[in-house]
Amino acid sequence: METSSLQKERAKYQPMLPKALQSAVSIKEGNPTQSADDHEDIKKLFPNTYGLPIVEFEPTISKETPNFNVGVILSGGQAPGGHNVISGIFDELKKLNPNSRLYGFLMGPGGLVDHNYIEITTELIQNYRNTGGFDLIGSGRTKLEKIDQFEKSLEIIRQLDIKAIVIIGGDDSNTNACVLAEYYAAKKYGVQVIGCPKTIDGDLKNDQIETSFGFDTATKTYSEMIGNIARDCNSARKYWHFIKLMGRSASHIALECALQTHPNICLISEEIKAKDKTLNDVVEYIATIVANRAKEGKNYGVVLVPEGLLEFIPAVYRLIQELSDLLATHGEEYKNLDDLSQKEYITTHLSETNRATFETLPLEVAHQLALERDPHGNVQVSLIETEKLLSVMVEAKLKEWVKTGKYVGKFSTIHHFLGYEGRCAAPSNFDANYCYSLGTTAVQLIANGKTGYMAIVKNTTAPTEEWIAGGVPITMMMNMERRNGEMKPVIRKALVDLQGAPFQTFVLNREKWAKESSYIYPGPIQYWGPKEVCDRTTKTLALEKGSNKNE
Amino acid sequence: METSSLQKERAKYQPMLPKALQSAVSIKEGNPTQSADDHEDIKKLFPNTYGLPIVEFEPTISKETPNFNVGVILSGGQAPGGHNVISGIFDELKKLNPNSRLYGFLMGPGGLVDHNYIEITTELIQNYRNTGGFDLIGSGRTKLEKIDQFEKSLEIIRQLDIKAIVIIGGDDSNTNACVLAEYYAAKKYGVQVIGCPKTIDGDLKNDQIETSFGFDTATKTYSEMIGNIARDCNSARKYWHFIKLMGRSASHIALECALQTHPNICLISEEIKAKDKTLNDVVEYIATIVANRAKEGKNYGVVLVPEGLLEFIPAVYRLIQELSDLLATHGEEYKNLDDLSQKEYITTHLSETNRATFETLPLEVAHQLALERDPHGNVQVSLIETEKLLSVMVEAKLKEWVKTGKYVGKFSTIHHFLGYEGRCAAPSNFDANYCYSLGTTAVQLIANGKTGYMAIVKNTTAPTEEWIAGGVPITMMMNMERRNGEMKPVIRKALVDLQGAPFQTFVLNREKWAKESSYIYPGPIQYWGPKEVCDRTTKTLALEKGSNKNE
Repeated sequence: METSSLQKERAKYQPMLPKALQSAVSIKEGNPTQSADDHEDIKKLFPNTYGLPIVEFEPTISKETPNFNVGVILSGGQAPGGHNVISGIFDELKKLNPNSRLYGFLMGPGGLVDHNYIEITTELIQNYRNTGGFDLIGSGRTKLEKIDQFEKSLEIIRQLDIKAIVIIGGDDSNTNACVLAEYYAAKKYGVQVIGCPKTIDGDLKNDQIETSFGFDTATKTYSEMIGNIARDCNSARKYWHFIKLMGRSASHIALECALQTHPNICLISEEIKAKDKTLNDVVEYIATIVANRAKEGKNYGVVLVPEGLLEFIPAVYRLIQELSDLLATHGEEYKNLDDLSQKEYITTHLSETNRATFETLPLEVAHQLALERDPHGNVQVSLIETEKLLSVMVEAKLKEWVKTGKYVGKFSTIHHFLGYEGRCAAPSNFDANYCYSLGTTAVQLIANGKTGYMAIVKNTTAPTEEWIAGGVPITMMMNMERRNGEMKPVIRKALVDLQGAPFQTFVLNREKWAKESSYIYPGPIQYWGPKEVCDRTTKTLALEKGSNKNE
Repeated sequence: METSSLQKERAKYQPMLPKALQSAVSIKEGNPTQSADDHEDIKKLFPNTYGLPIVEFEPTISKETPNFNVGVILSGGQAPGGHNVISGIFDELKKLNPNSRLYGFLMGPGGLVDHNYIEITTELIQNYRNTGGFDLIGSGRTKLEKIDQFEKSLEIIRQLDIKAIVIIGGDDSNTNACVLAEYYAAKKYGVQVIGCPKTIDGDLKNDQIETSFGFDTATKTYSEMIGNIARDCNSARKYWHFIKLMGRSASHIALECALQTHPNICLISEEIKAKDKTLNDVVEYIATIVANRAKEGKNYGVVLVPEGLLEFIPAVYRLIQELSDLLATHGEEYKNLDDLSQKEYITTHLSETNRATFETLPLEVAHQLALERDPHGNVQVSLIETEKLLSVMVEAKLKEWVKTGKYVGKFSTIHHFLGYEGRCAAPSNFDANYCYSLGTTAVQLIANGKTGYMAIVKNTTAPTEEWIAGGVPITMMMNMERRNGEMKPVIRKALVDLQGAPFQTFVLNREKWAKESSYIYPGPIQYWGPKEVCDRTTKTLALEKGSNKNE
């Protein structure tokens, strides 16, 4: 396998571990726990995995451990550090007993159900240490939810003599991990299930999870690019760059990148929803900053847009919902119409308010909304180029303002979408250590007989030595939410907290950033060199931990 | 000024210099030179700056130098390292005589004509050492071509007592530098002009110029992103990523990135033109690779597309030419037609061959070609989303092939354009040293009385100590070419050499890369750490120098 010079050198890096995980480990159990909400419902659904204590590791003297086999699964979107979770699992497993084996199920949870797997060996893992991507075993989005899936999985678990499955995933995947743990516990199959918190989106976060892995590396990679674009913007001084950032259900990425780079404008979906803004409000907000900068001769700037924005604008959300219903119901008769008739069809069938919203949209976007649907008839919001939608609407607004003299200037735009550029970056030192620690933790939870737990590492703004590792019962993070019309137990998604320190810091500074061109250029992630550069934590984490201390 | 931790640490980096520039410098002159071609024409146009010798620096004992002032200009698109050229000029100027002054003309050559400038001071330059961007003094695209511009510039040159102007730019800007040098020499104004070779595109390159600055950093930054995308591609295994790369007039960037990352497909415009390929040929080439991979269950891959591709496809080029003429001539009557009538108008007015080409284009692209024009009526090729055009046409081709059983698979695409993400990256160690050396060289050329020269640093694959610095008369690189209907003296653009080692290496490997998924993940530029990672040169330069040695 031909690799880059960076991969070769980086393969030699030995990730650091918290003190408690450096030698043999004993477990300290806390008090019984409760779910985040809906205690009775969750308790009823998870009789065997509810109310378990939080556990924390402590160093102890070495003891002999019998060998046991583990299966690992990568679930959902890629995040930097996945391979380090696996190498952490591998190393700890072999350290406890060299006869233990690690199996990787291929292309996500489907690999477990369909019995597609490989054994992960010393030679194999070597090429993947401290690398990005999930390509060692691949990932997938199959949901583990049904009893026949659980039973089918059990066959291969038995065949390979697997004691425990580690599922590395986001909120949904960890919820499913807990459902699987509960099922196997109820059936007394003796198979444990452990989850690991992964997502670049940063929305799997709560009192117990300080950050999910990948967020650090992905936001640093996006910030590198945004800084480069901002520097170009500030050198050429003739373009407004509209940059859409991955993160559909929360704006953590956009907020973190804004804190790292100081763009002129950053939209935070959660704020727009909380303030019940319309699309026109958002457009006027941007246009006002453009017009004010133009007054000072600055016909350039940088705008960050979270991918999920449109669904957070209440009026647009309602439109999308009605459109989806409309197209799902009337799909057949609608399908055979030509473009123009389709649009007419839509405008005549929409309710008055939603029609009004529909008619404010630029032609191209209205077209996308009307035509692009997934196989279930749903509007594919992710295909809408929100960054272009906004710039086109801002341009139209500015043209109006020219007539009244409210705006004099030039408005040229360039669009970017940063997503796939960061999900598989080689993990930063932080993510390399964090993920390796999570993998090590997962094995210790298994060795100590735990199931339905998530591997957790805390105190992550301190030096790695001082990190605290342990496990949290997944039920503790759950509440009941409506999903596709049904109440389901789910891990509550962490949206941007409008009272939290990261957002408040942004609010304190954004007017200054809008007016000035005080961009910060973070540059590429560094693996060697000054500590201040290589080991800097995300602004989000630093501010959240800082604010916790002040409470 | 708030800066990032990387900027703070990187500001401390002292760029390295070739041995000859480390202390006092004497000059060694070679034989008289000739232009690249059209000797008589060039000689007639440049009587005062033609035929000068190549010069090379050698160490000597220190001598006192009288103070003199220099003006510097950044011209054209941003390239990593521009600030280091300026800091190289600044440091050498002050080293020779602390009373010398450096003036920066603002926003490109226009700053010289319009007398917009700042003095560059020790405090000011400090914040810009080893940083990306041109924001210290900005850049612009005003062409210095006319006598009244030269005379207007002279006013401020006299006012500030400037001995020499350094113009940092690409082929056109260096041509203009030489025209200015010739004019001032002919008039005996005693003002020297020196050029510096800058462009991320890599097309300012010849026997004398090993590489233009910025190419190293920009291609490493793009390769970082391409590697990340490829790793995502290889993890998710469900998308074909079409990545357009900056570089309109040559494919050096695409080729270099291909050599660094091993994509499944990379198009090289120069090859497509040389083989007289049609758009359909290109589409079939891609579709064949897609279909072959699908046979092995690989419905994913990475395609690199140079920005200028369309203009290199002879049939499309002819279409664009005729369209531009047509729309420029009939602009007025055409303008008032609606979209549909505009298209009709075009198809009825085009010649038969070009109409046939026009009709093979996807709707959206035909629309862009027909509607988007610059103020002169020219079709704006740079606005055409070539990456989407190709993927749409490949999809259509695959749909045909499904009918005949030639293709069975899924084809989902994601599009990227990498350009502004790399032009202002913080310079790699190579570009930091190279640019600093170029700046130092420029000052030595001035101190030694040279004009109409380009600052040159050679032997750049050796350690910096061993680099060879000097100057080359710009006329030596010139020939006559037709530009806008007129024969003009220009520096010959370096296109990808289809016989050269970089392209030949690519050809040797591309079938393997197409079939396998043997991506390389170069990762982000590193400034500290193992030499193999931090100081690696571009593949292009390494292969070109290697092949030179073999000659």
